[in-house]
Amino acid sequence: MGVPDPLLAESLARIARDVDSMFDALLPSATDNRSVLDQAMRHAAIGGGKRLRPLLLTATAAMYGVDHAQALRAGIAIEAVHAYSLVHDDLPCMDDDELRHGKPTVHKAFGEAVAVLVGDALQAFAFEVLADPATSGDPFVRAELVKVLAQAAGAGGMVGGQMLDIAGEGQALGLPEITRLQQLKTGALLGAAVEMGAVLGKVPAEGRTHLRGYARDLGLAFQIADDLLDHEGDAAKAGKALRKDAGAGKQTFVAVLGADRAREQAQMLVDQAIAHLGHHGQEADVLRALARYIVERDH
Amino acid sequence: MGVPDPLLAESLARIARDVDSMFDALLPSATDNRSVLDQAMRHAAIGGGKRLRPLLLTATAAMYGVDHAQALRAGIAIEAVHAYSLVHDDLPCMDDDELRHGKPTVHKAFGEAVAVLVGDALQAFAFEVLADPATSGDPFVRAELVKVLAQAAGAGGMVGGQMLDIAGEGQALGLPEITRLQQLKTGALLGAAVEMGAVLGKVPAEGRTHLRGYARDLGLAFQIADDLLDHEGDAAKAGKALRKDAGAGKQTFVAVLGADRAREQAQMLVDQAIAHLGHHGQEADVLRALARYIVERDH
Repeated sequence: MGVPDPLLAESLARIARDVDSMFDALLPSATDNRSVLDQAMRHAAIGGGKRLRPLLLTATAAMYGVDHAQALRAGIAIEAVHAYSLVHDDLPCMDDDELRHGKPTVHKAFGEAVAVLVGDALQAFAFEVLADPATSGDPFVRAELVKVLAQAAGAGGMVGGQMLDIAGEGQALGLPEITRLQQLKTGALLGAAVEMGAVLGKVPAEGRTHLRGYARDLGLAFQIADDLLDHEGDAAKAGKALRKDAGAGKQTFVAVLGADRAREQAQMLVDQAIAHLGHHGQEADVLRALARYIVERDH
Repeated sequence: MGVPDPLLAESLARIARDVDSMFDALLPSATDNRSVLDQAMRHAAIGGGKRLRPLLLTATAAMYGVDHAQALRAGIAIEAVHAYSLVHDDLPCMDDDELRHGKPTVHKAFGEAVAVLVGDALQAFAFEVLADPATSGDPFVRAELVKVLAQAAGAGGMVGGQMLDIAGEGQALGLPEITRLQQLKTGALLGAAVEMGAVLGKVPAEGRTHLRGYARDLGLAFQIADDLLDHEGDAAKAGKALRKDAGAGKQTFVAVLGADRAREQAQMLVDQAIAHLGHHGQEADVLRALARYIVERDH
């Protein structure tokens, strides 16, 4: 339990290195008074997280023969959106967290005003990277990448899910409401990662149905596993405060289903996610291993 | 003084109507718990501001025969970025303002957490609109619009300028530092408005030099005029608190140059901006009138 298979372990290690080095190369580094902003953007983006979204994106793109460096640029963009959302989520007016990836949160290290700006700048950075011809020589692909990421990031996706999360605090949400909330809050971006890989691979929309099914099941399994970790996990391994959900009056899958049924449900979703990949051969092995890992990880 | 010429008055009235009605049509309106977010996005985006950026964009695009509805979509995108920046700027950890366009600021009306999310969602909305084929049937144009706006909005533009503004509080900045700060904080987005109009008009990069010169001079003149209004203006007409800059220890053009020299400088920049348009005929009359209006307005 908790140890990924060798193929996935190698992929996780590689994407972690690649993401850090590409963030380092692409993030700004001004020499004037803006240097605080640039340092804080690096603090938020480099050296933390499992990089699941870039891995999902690059592994999907690789199935269709996309150049790794180009897929990695799109991976950086989606990870920048994820990183900005964590910076804003951690703010005192939101979740008020002090620790993230084992480091002080951005507002603890640099102040609240800088943390607001870091999130804002990381979001703009994401779209700047996608729109650059280095990400794809095909402008249609660039524009599609922007559209998919913007839809998943905004009020119809991630930010909408955060709004549901805030609005639902202290309310007794049922399973359908929690599912909807999480499909937006984390599912939209995980789905976008797979979709962007398919866009880079020029897979026509009608050929993406199975990938969307995979991403949808994976996203829910991921969130249930996250709730289980929040409920039972080790704060030192997680690098952040745990068991905050119950205290904040937030409804989770574990609260509604209980830990045992939640674990069964996550396993069932993983099996279903893998089944969507049935007509693929070994080119989909990383996606399969990732789905299994998502419910077995210990942080 | 303060009254725009008839052509410009008509253009200002038209763009105000068009921007409001298109925001109303395009902004989300969820019926679930997200409705608070959607209401707050509308509060931030609809019914306020002079809409200078959409006017600059559509007036430039019109010079090159671009369809008004398409240019307006790009105008909505840049105005969404401007609106989000005001929402975040007004937050307690930033400028802590209570009034904007004569209404309570978003965090006053909806709370801080919602205000953070409104800004984040408006930024994503901007790029979603640009990447949509309805903005241009040419994917190269869509990708270019995204690139220009993302660069102008991020750490290398508007957000970078806000960082300089925060970092410079209480410091004795000279004219070059204030100029640089304002070129990023407000100039970048005003420049992007003109540039995006040229992108829609498929003006090649080498044919945009005069437009960039116009935008650069206009942007600085605009900021000097803003400083003069903050120094001498009428808070009721401005719809926001004035004379906050001195109190916040912020350096302004007026503080460094004095009001008389600042006014002369703004006028000189306007003349220079108009001179850049020398080889255009009456198709550039709105841009000329806008430049004159920018230093003559009383709010």
